[in-house]
Amino acid sequence: MQFLSDNAAAVHPRVWEAMRAADAADAPYDGDGLSNRLDEAFTAMFGRECAAIWVATGTAANCLALATLVQPHGAVVCHREAHIEMDEGGAPGFYLHGAKLLLAEGAGAKLDPAAIAATIDPIRDDVHQVQPHAVSVTQASEYGLCYRPGELAAIGRLARERGLGLHVDGARFANAVAFLDCPAAEAAGPADALSFGCIKNGAMSAEAVVFFDPAAADLARYRRKRAGHLQSKGRFLAAQVLAMIEGDLWLANARAANAAAAEIAGACGDRLLHPVEANEVFVRLSPEERAALRGQGFGFYDWGSDAARFVTAWNSADAAVAALARAISGL
Amino acid sequence: MQFLSDNAAAVHPRVWEAMRAADAADAPYDGDGLSNRLDEAFTAMFGRECAAIWVATGTAANCLALATLVQPHGAVVCHREAHIEMDEGGAPGFYLHGAKLLLAEGAGAKLDPAAIAATIDPIRDDVHQVQPHAVSVTQASEYGLCYRPGELAAIGRLARERGLGLHVDGARFANAVAFLDCPAAEAAGPADALSFGCIKNGAMSAEAVVFFDPAAADLARYRRKRAGHLQSKGRFLAAQVLAMIEGDLWLANARAANAAAAEIAGACGDRLLHPVEANEVFVRLSPEERAALRGQGFGFYDWGSDAARFVTAWNSADAAVAALARAISGL
Amino acid sequence: MQFLSDNAAAVHPRVWEAMRAADAADAPYDGDGLSNRLDEAFTAMFGRECAAIWVATGTAANCLALATLVQPHGAVVCHREAHIEMDEGGAPGFYLHGAKLLLAEGAGAKLDPAAIAATIDPIRDDVHQVQPHAVSVTQASEYGLCYRPGELAAIGRLARERGLGLHVDGARFANAVAFLDCPAAEAAGPADALSFGCIKNGAMSAEAVVFFDPAAADLARYRRKRAGHLQSKGRFLAAQVLAMIEGDLWLANARAANAAAAEIAGACGDRLLHPVEANEVFVRLSPEERAALRGQGFGFYDWGSDAARFVTAWNSADAAVAALARAISGL
Amino acid sequence: MQFLSDNAAAVHPRVWEAMRAADAADAPYDGDGLSNRLDEAFTAMFGRECAAIWVATGTAANCLALATLVQPHGAVVCHREAHIEMDEGGAPGFYLHGAKLLLAEGAGAKLDPAAIAATIDPIRDDVHQVQPHAVSVTQASEYGLCYRPGELAAIGRLARERGLGLHVDGARFANAVAFLDCPAAEAAGPADALSFGCIKNGAMSAEAVVFFDPAAADLARYRRKRAGHLQSKGRFLAAQVLAMIEGDLWLANARAANAAAAEIAGACGDRLLHPVEANEVFVRLSPEERAALRGQGFGFYDWGSDAARFVTAWNSADAAVAALARAISGL
Repeated sequence: MQFLSDNAAAVHPRVWEAMRAADAADAPYDGDGLSNRLDEAFTAMFGRECAAIWVATGTAANCLALATLVQPHGAVVCHREAHIEMDEGGAPGFYLHGAKLLLAEGAGAKLDPAAIAATIDPIRDDVHQVQPHAVSVTQASEYGLCYRPGELAAIGRLARERGLGLHVDGARFANAVAFLDCPAAEAAGPADALSFGCIKNGAMSAEAVVFFDPAAADLARYRRKRAGHLQSKGRFLAAQVLAMIEGDLWLANARAANAAAAEIAGACGDRLLHPVEANEVFVRLSPEERAALRGQGFGFYDWGSDAARFVTAWNSADAAVAALARAISGL
Repeated sequence: MQFLSDNAAAVHPRVWEAMRAADAADAPYDGDGLSNRLDEAFTAMFGRECAAIWVATGTAANCLALATLVQPHGAVVCHREAHIEMDEGGAPGFYLHGAKLLLAEGAGAKLDPAAIAATIDPIRDDVHQVQPHAVSVTQASEYGLCYRPGELAAIGRLARERGLGLHVDGARFANAVAFLDCPAAEAAGPADALSFGCIKNGAMSAEAVVFFDPAAADLARYRRKRAGHLQSKGRFLAAQVLAMIEGDLWLANARAANAAAAEIAGACGDRLLHPVEANEVFVRLSPEERAALRGQGFGFYDWGSDAARFVTAWNSADAAVAALARAISGL
Repeated sequence: MQFLSDNAAAVHPRVWEAMRAADAADAPYDGDGLSNRLDEAFTAMFGRECAAIWVATGTAANCLALATLVQPHGAVVCHREAHIEMDEGGAPGFYLHGAKLLLAEGAGAKLDPAAIAATIDPIRDDVHQVQPHAVSVTQASEYGLCYRPGELAAIGRLARERGLGLHVDGARFANAVAFLDCPAAEAAGPADALSFGCIKNGAMSAEAVVFFDPAAADLARYRRKRAGHLQSKGRFLAAQVLAMIEGDLWLANARAANAAAAEIAGACGDRLLHPVEANEVFVRLSPEERAALRGQGFGFYDWGSDAARFVTAWNSADAAVAALARAISGL
Repeated sequence: MQFLSDNAAAVHPRVWEAMRAADAADAPYDGDGLSNRLDEAFTAMFGRECAAIWVATGTAANCLALATLVQPHGAVVCHREAHIEMDEGGAPGFYLHGAKLLLAEGAGAKLDPAAIAATIDPIRDDVHQVQPHAVSVTQASEYGLCYRPGELAAIGRLARERGLGLHVDGARFANAVAFLDCPAAEAAGPADALSFGCIKNGAMSAEAVVFFDPAAADLARYRRKRAGHLQSKGRFLAAQVLAMIEGDLWLANARAANAAAAEIAGACGDRLLHPVEANEVFVRLSPEERAALRGQGFGFYDWGSDAARFVTAWNSADAAVAALARAISGL
């Protein structure tokens, strides 16, 4: 009964099917028929012209997106606990050739215009200090909280005023859209580029980077190759992304994961560290309580010394979810 | 009847099976049971202690290998037509932080000690000139020629004398071993690191980088993450690599591709630009002859204005191969 | 009556003399007779084998030093207000190829072992998080505070235990040694590399990087050239550094600057934000008080909204210093 | 009697005077009165709006110029023997974050449109191959040959057609203008950026980078700081550059050096490897002849096994020049 993460869950049967259907040889790299459908698929999803490329990891997606927005001598404003700061092994420093991450504060790992301004306002506009070039927000955040469309719009306005690009790390974008129950375009806000996550939501090895400026996508294609991320059998990645989009599998999977998280959250009462909006549940639990849960066969990560993180996935078993909810209630 | 490349061929059924068998959730990244078997599998193959990591592309494999051998202010000696120079979109410059490729000459895209020495001997040992740190050779070469064990040993001796690391780009290493009919260890020579290709040989999206110095593998693990190449469902890559190794599928597939190439070569007579040792056939063909072949349904790349390249794969259909041989004979 | 900074002060007459004396052509780059004396001069100063190179700026000195201690996928622990973090335009990101600065806290912009440990202890030892490779401390600190030898020794012990290199940014190292009144070796502590500042102390355009591991200096020589910092008339930089060392001009100049700062500090009473140990005086002053001082002809920087920074130099005029002290007293 | 290089010659008295005159403290970095005059000085020289920055070396000048024209995934076309390729320790790889140098051929180390086209035409316009972003030519070339205005105009036309920037490495630009006897603007051609050399021509430690697009200069200012090249006493560099320009000292010095070279060349007859246009003389001399000349006290570099390079400077002594001419005549 694993609630460690959604990042290693099984692959959805429809993704498998789509991959098998892509087996017959086609043009290499991204010249195949499936890769060529991505732009159209995302343009339909977002209702404005998009260009999209596949990559194998969220880290690569984030970094290739940011590389179109940030020059080597610039910086990205992000939350202190953002994935790009905490969990990507310094990949932004590599992809952005030494550009800096400027760390802002915010409850639930969310930024707002005031927090961004507080981070960049003290920076003198001279060559001695690294200048911000972009903002990156995570939808849903590291704590599973979702930006409302109005919140993103406000961040976008600040970004425009300050001449900053806007990137949305959407490793769990589907969970955010499922929660917000709004059009994808509103959940992405006025982003220049979106990392559209699939892997945590039932795919195997494909994320998409969606560029709302097609010229940026052209640039990213060079950078993707240069980063060794242009797979010669790229049709298998395109197949995964398209399988997620078609029939709105991405939303169905995210709704399932969110529902499982909500069920667990319902059992947690005031133990919850954060409201549960997506598929992550942060729960105050003593070491003894955690030991007890593990004794009952539940897998999860400690979160500091007094809490635990439970992550649900598209395929979290109903019985396991119910059992966990009962077990927490019974503590 | 495609002979464009082996790089986009279908995935071998046993690779598919191994991937399906890996579906059940396991530890993320490379903590899973399959990834943990790679070191042992390659140690058995090479008869000396190895540490191996998976990556999604040959470009990433080559660059992560070289990053353990070359400092940013150094250089790699490679053939003027090496893949790292011609076809990787500048990835070595990215991964090696601006280190240089020093281009050596050699028939059939193969290097020898004299060619390497001719490239590096003129370099003064001072800070004004970029100093070589490593040599990279390709087994089999860009023209499908194989280094004999003695040739690699001689290059290795020179490398050791000059304090240079040795990397082998083995995107088609299997084809070389199949041709040489020698132990893998002899076909890799005294390499420090080997890019062990699987994708052109029946896998979907996994290559291995084999380090003959485990400390280098530790370093490469950091660099892999930093390059966005640490997939969270890495078990699917490990599964592919292991499927290739088990039961020597890698050799069986390479033998099939080599045999197909040999059959075509047999029809080419003195049209051949290079001896056919692996699975690539370079054939002198006039524009009219190429048009005629294409008119018969054969797909292939032009190679300059008077020749063509045919590449066979593990699954080149017997009938198509025979038809191509007949068609060339009949020109 | 400028107290803006020591960084643009006039050049000391003995430095001018030494530069003039170096005019006659000599070997280019660092092959000249003066450059060849640097190792010996610093070996004498520190009482252990040193290798030293000149560079034109403190930023280059710091970054070249750190580049010998930190790999691209690593990090440097420094104070949140360190020069390398705040004032070098992202140069560490450039020179270290994207390595990260990890920001630690500490009163007076000084670090101690507890602050360093608090910064690095939460970092998991895995590839997802950037690992620390070195610590950088500033002697004297950004607020003019000096590390006592015992404090540096303690930091050095922690660094050794954790496998970290130790760099000392000594842009105002002379001021620290003048204050501490101890051997230079004790003021540098168990550093691996020291940026030995001259420019703020009477030189024109030369700092030294002192390596206590000569192999690191060899590496830094390549990196210096690669950064465009190997001047062909390097003898003029060597002349400056040697002029500072000979006859202990560096200490005499620093003592003069420190004495001037002490005189100003004596007039500040409890207005001082920090004890005055070197040549910087941070003084609580209201906007009106600052306006009044400026009205009397004093130049200085605001430090936030309620304070000012006064920096003295080797040539701060006695009369100006006395006048400033009186003016502050009289507020 | 040194003819090794002009790169370590004595500093011209008027440069010394200008530096002394700049001693009094002024605003730091490039905020001083002298630095502020650079744009105007070069605008006057070139007759179109320029923005200029000082740096300490030609390597830094070249690399900062190129960094405004070339993205990390791009390439610079230059001559196989260009300084940026042969003598800068890999600095372009560092400053351009791994961008590539594409090496073109040409007699006398000069490029022409055909050579540039021959280098870039074979590059497919796809992500697998590094795309050219700029051309860099050297005026005067590594062999002391000067591009005629028409030659540069033709290169510029090709560059514009192909969307490439144009950089002129003018380490010996003064010598070229002195030889061509044309306006500086014609000798720079339709360059986007010019490295305007002073150090080989009588300055100590200052070159200028002249940008014909002021926006590029703004970018270069950030990159200069980031490279540790923004000196706090930058007024001394500005003073050098201005001293060279004022009263056309740059041309007077270059004419003197060129005249000395011409005198030597006059004695060489058909021993000359290249026409002597600037201040370098490449002379066919046997090992015995070179030994004889060295025995008479002449210093110079061997150039391969059968030739020598003599470089004159602004201050080459008439007697030494005459003596060398006689000595060569007498061989």
